Amino acid sequence: MAKLLLNADVGESYGAWRMGNDPAVMPVLDLANIACGFHASDPDIMRATVRLAVENQVTIGAHPAYPDLVGFGRRSMACSPAQVENLVLYQVGALAAMCRAEGATLHYVKPHGALYNDMATDHGLLAAVMRGVSAFGGHLVLMVPATPDPEPVRALARNYGLQLWFEVFADRAYHQDGRLVSRSTEGAVHHDQQVIVEQALCFAEGRAIPSIEGSALVLQADTLCVHGDNEASIQAARAIRNALGRRAG
Amino acid sequence: MAKLLLNADVGESYGAWRMGNDPAVMPVLDLANIACGFHASDPDIMRATVRLAVENQVTIGAHPAYPDLVGFGRRSMACSPAQVENLVLYQVGALAAMCRAEGATLHYVKPHGALYNDMATDHGLLAAVMRGVSAFGGHLVLMVPATPDPEPVRALARNYGLQLWFEVFADRAYHQDGRLVSRSTEGAVHHDQQVIVEQALCFAEGRAIPSIEGSALVLQADTLCVHGDNEASIQAARAIRNALGRRAG
Amino acid sequence: MAKLLLNADVGESYGAWRMGNDPAVMPVLDLANIACGFHASDPDIMRATVRLAVENQVTIGAHPAYPDLVGFGRRSMACSPAQVENLVLYQVGALAAMCRAEGATLHYVKPHGALYNDMATDHGLLAAVMRGVSAFGGHLVLMVPATPDPEPVRALARNYGLQLWFEVFADRAYHQDGRLVSRSTEGAVHHDQQVIVEQALCFAEGRAIPSIEGSALVLQADTLCVHGDNEASIQAARAIRNALGRRAG
Amino acid sequence: MAKLLLNADVGESYGAWRMGNDPAVMPVLDLANIACGFHASDPDIMRATVRLAVENQVTIGAHPAYPDLVGFGRRSMACSPAQVENLVLYQVGALAAMCRAEGATLHYVKPHGALYNDMATDHGLLAAVMRGVSAFGGHLVLMVPATPDPEPVRALARNYGLQLWFEVFADRAYHQDGRLVSRSTEGAVHHDQQVIVEQALCFAEGRAIPSIEGSALVLQADTLCVHGDNEASIQAARAIRNALGRRAG
Repeated sequence: MAKLLLNADVGESYGAWRMGNDPAVMPVLDLANIACGFHASDPDIMRATVRLAVENQVTIGAHPAYPDLVGFGRRSMACSPAQVENLVLYQVGALAAMCRAEGATLHYVKPHGALYNDMATDHGLLAAVMRGVSAFGGHLVLMVPATPDPEPVRALARNYGLQLWFEVFADRAYHQDGRLVSRSTEGAVHHDQQVIVEQALCFAEGRAIPSIEGSALVLQADTLCVHGDNEASIQAARAIRNALGRRAG
Repeated sequence: MAKLLLNADVGESYGAWRMGNDPAVMPVLDLANIACGFHASDPDIMRATVRLAVENQVTIGAHPAYPDLVGFGRRSMACSPAQVENLVLYQVGALAAMCRAEGATLHYVKPHGALYNDMATDHGLLAAVMRGVSAFGGHLVLMVPATPDPEPVRALARNYGLQLWFEVFADRAYHQDGRLVSRSTEGAVHHDQQVIVEQALCFAEGRAIPSIEGSALVLQADTLCVHGDNEASIQAARAIRNALGRRAG
Repeated sequence: MAKLLLNADVGESYGAWRMGNDPAVMPVLDLANIACGFHASDPDIMRATVRLAVENQVTIGAHPAYPDLVGFGRRSMACSPAQVENLVLYQVGALAAMCRAEGATLHYVKPHGALYNDMATDHGLLAAVMRGVSAFGGHLVLMVPATPDPEPVRALARNYGLQLWFEVFADRAYHQDGRLVSRSTEGAVHHDQQVIVEQALCFAEGRAIPSIEGSALVLQADTLCVHGDNEASIQAARAIRNALGRRAG
Repeated sequence: MAKLLLNADVGESYGAWRMGNDPAVMPVLDLANIACGFHASDPDIMRATVRLAVENQVTIGAHPAYPDLVGFGRRSMACSPAQVENLVLYQVGALAAMCRAEGATLHYVKPHGALYNDMATDHGLLAAVMRGVSAFGGHLVLMVPATPDPEPVRALARNYGLQLWFEVFADRAYHQDGRLVSRSTEGAVHHDQQVIVEQALCFAEGRAIPSIEGSALVLQADTLCVHGDNEASIQAARAIRNALGRRAG
């Protein structure tokens, strides 16, 4: 069985404002998606978060976003492909500098929020993200949403010489076509920890999960997203960690 | 005679706003101080400016600043040394990514505006800047104001393993202690192109210039700052270039 | 013949960056759309622009935008209706304060850029803008794009007790349904000053203009947008002013 | 005995980030210092905070700051007097609009953080703040730090037609000259609730407090600052409220 890596968004405080409990969630992670200053974080928080990841031997990824602090990068913005390419590159470079300062290596990129969602449905935007990641070089992996039909995305990534990690969620319901059920829909978010852990195990073992329409859905996944936002999400992350076994590496 | 390198601040447009005539000044430069998004510039402009420097075979430096777009980085801010260290590191990393994307190398760092002035008088702040540059690694050179007594600054730089370039101005009057005369003082800025070129030649040849108090002032200098802001400054830059001879490299 | 008021976007400099030639265009205007700090401008520029409008006896309007300085408010952002209502209210209030300081009165609101375009096609967003304007009170007029079928917009405005001014463009081609032709289309922008003046006169006199499809289009218009960006646009604005006759008031 | 009004900084969340417990502290306040978007807050949070103040019948003040979100307005910035005047005016206007929308009235202005501290020691800056407040009109009161020698500040305020409220702190030690003891000094902050309440009562009753040097210090005070940051500060605020008696109005 291939390893399912646990990732979480971390380092999303900003200036005097705190968000999430990074010290609590970091020990259960394989991968830390570290904010880069456009939707959250600042140079001090970025450096401290890289240091925390290093102390916990967690692999570091950049978590670039649209330039929208007040909207936390959750609002789609009509950025041109060239703008997206360059804002990804900028943020990746800034985080890479923090890694250099802490003797760490930047391994991957996971776009944040609206940018992540938009690139999943707009391959022009996805190509722009890929150009930004590829322009940085350094064999960075790009994290993208898992999909029942990954070949078009893989083909695009090959154009840019990029490796992909496909990501799934244990606490979210899926449509039969592989899209996440919108949070505004009844049943979109799993709150029962047993259900969450079981869905994580399905992904880890390559088994089907039930889609919200009732059909069986198989998604090939490299990594699973957990959350450090609150006590419940951290408990769920720990339970998933226990179910999946020791961290990679 | 050691080479006196010509540097200028470039890439200081922002979004829809233009500043300076970079294509006109770039050909006469040895060194391009490229803004990094905190006092000016954005990811698109940074990348285009790096490309312009590459096309003109100009050596690239990062031009980091206090986080103050509306004040153009010209206002002192009471940032802590740790904040200064990390904001320098962040901006250097972002520009370095643009260099990687364009097949170029980042060679040096020149802090901008109020940060440049503040570090010249506050060695705690200067040490913070040095830690930020040093943390990035890559043998970056740090540009600092020339001073009649460079040894304390050199000693500090040695602590961080940094090479220094000392910078002078051809269009500004100096006090006998090596400080620039404040712009609000009569005679602080030279407007006569002959005076400007002569002052540049003094620096290039290691000769003394007259201080505003009348005494002779010798400043050891590695680089001289010119400006691409307007037609007069670009004419002066060209005249200095002609007087100093062909570009280095 | 009802008066066709000339309006232009002014006060769109930002910090150290200049945009447009406000002193040149202001004398030909009836209405000054003054930027409020979200897509352009800052408190100093806002105050100076209000003062310039007062000196030229130009009626003052607020020009609120999405929070996107680097994108100049030209990029659609998925702001919620509540966010739009409040960001309009915030910007209107800030400009109203500048008017109070200069002994002037704020008369109207014209949303900027992407917000202006988005509200024209999304009446949920338009209603949000109207709530923001209405919440400020003070009998502010809202400027909206002219349309062959203004009744739905009028009906919405009546809900919020707002008066409307419908706006047209003299230098842009229109589709037969009243939409502006996209700038990326051949023939979208008129460059011939005679054509521009003639289109302005058509609007002023209630005559039809030829749509890009060739059919006759009549748009009821209260105001016409001119530009102070460059010498050509200022010349066109003066020619329109001359053709339309003396300023209102 | 004149009433000592309790004030607190509220509405200091920003976008997705929360700060303080406004619903818990609001009921004990007479005066709510509401952030205006430059050091904290955004249009949505400003409006919700005004609404909360209205619901609790708390008098509303604007809490303008230097433009420094990432530094929370705590860092001195070398803004010119004109810049300070206009940024105060801008922020006051934006909050006044929120008050209009909620049927409330803006009553006073308390500058925030570094701006508050800087104006206490630099009367040029204080005059600039006063010009900004005065330019808005509307009989706004300006809150300033209490001082043993208030006459120079009163004289300056008279020039601008402004009423002043002098502010004291119950949880902070004072030097004999009326300055607050720096937080970095041992004994600068009182943590014992009895000590805090006793100091509040001294101010309310016009009695002397012991300065950190041991001498007796009398400060005439109109208002006392409490905090809603955490459970301990809210408890202290409630204890002070109980000791001082029912709210004014």
